[in-house]
Amino acid sequence: MSKGEHTRQLIVSRALAMAHRVGLEQVTLGSLANELDLSKSGLFAHFESKEALQLEVIAEVVAQFTRTVVLPALGMSRGSERASTLFKGYLRWIHGRPQSESGTTGCMFVALTYEYDDRPGPIRDAVLAAQREWLDALARVAKSAVDYGMFSPHVDPRQFAFDFEGIIMSYQFALKVARSRAAEPMARRAFTELLARCTAR
Amino acid sequence: MSKGEHTRQLIVSRALAMAHRVGLEQVTLGSLANELDLSKSGLFAHFESKEALQLEVIAEVVAQFTRTVVLPALGMSRGSERASTLFKGYLRWIHGRPQSESGTTGCMFVALTYEYDDRPGPIRDAVLAAQREWLDALARVAKSAVDYGMFSPHVDPRQFAFDFEGIIMSYQFALKVARSRAAEPMARRAFTELLARCTAR
Repeated sequence: MSKGEHTRQLIVSRALAMAHRVGLEQVTLGSLANELDLSKSGLFAHFESKEALQLEVIAEVVAQFTRTVVLPALGMSRGSERASTLFKGYLRWIHGRPQSESGTTGCMFVALTYEYDDRPGPIRDAVLAAQREWLDALARVAKSAVDYGMFSPHVDPRQFAFDFEGIIMSYQFALKVARSRAAEPMARRAFTELLARCTAR
Repeated sequence: MSKGEHTRQLIVSRALAMAHRVGLEQVTLGSLANELDLSKSGLFAHFESKEALQLEVIAEVVAQFTRTVVLPALGMSRGSERASTLFKGYLRWIHGRPQSESGTTGCMFVALTYEYDDRPGPIRDAVLAAQREWLDALARVAKSAVDYGMFSPHVDPRQFAFDFEGIIMSYQFALKVARSRAAEPMARRAFTELLARCTAR
């Protein structure tokens, strides 16, 4: 990695940490330059605009999610094992995320969705594209399990993705908003039920 | 209703409409006085602070939710019928809500949760209390169905509430964020599955 790439990487990871605290929209080149002890023009040498930096931050969140949640599942065998690995990885991703000042945020994608829901533009498009890709990936996991006979032929891959995401969202709410200690056991039970439906003959 | 109560009611409903557009935190007595063609001191005669007005707006959302979603279910017989009426009412509530400028918000409680997640204080407490009451109500619906033999004795009322909310959240995401046309059929199918599990012997 060249020195330039290294600095660029450092800027993105600081920007991401700042976005976790105050929201991505509040990550300005000025405040970031301050925090990194760089000049604003030094920052501009790496990112021509605030928007370019924000898009890079989203790409970094996607890369982290892929490493933490998606890649570990690819080595698993099709069907229940692969789906369970995705599920456990996603619980860890939500549980272990840095929280906002008061501690409710959890998943950065959910935070970004609500931060940008009334701000149309390239940032919101990037967030939505990432979420669509994830739902497609979930549906593909179910489809390949059906194709190879691990899941019942009655399983609708899109419905699987819908049900999977519902459990995750209810978990995130129970854990981060309602602060329920039962969040994880309830999520696991719901997921066990989902798998049982998928594998029922 | 006295003239004073009438004005008070009008102020709250305008404030709620404004909150749907710009978020509850942006509803200031100044901007509201402007919109209602009242003096700021005229407004102060009805609400001693911005916070008092915001709490009243939340109480109004709770009242609307109760009228639209909860009350119609109370007349239904215990178990599947009552749960289904709640579910259909909730889908309507999300589907028919006024949207934010770009149209993604949907349920005011979800919007409020994310708006106040890093703003501890009485507003966030009121939002959380309303959500907790709703989850308790859902759990009570399941418990009474178990007690009267309409649901299987294996049904855990808290798990029922967790699963129910998961379907609702995934529906809201599919409808308002991903704009999927399959949002409603997928939500209905997921709910049919949930009821089938609850009534299985």
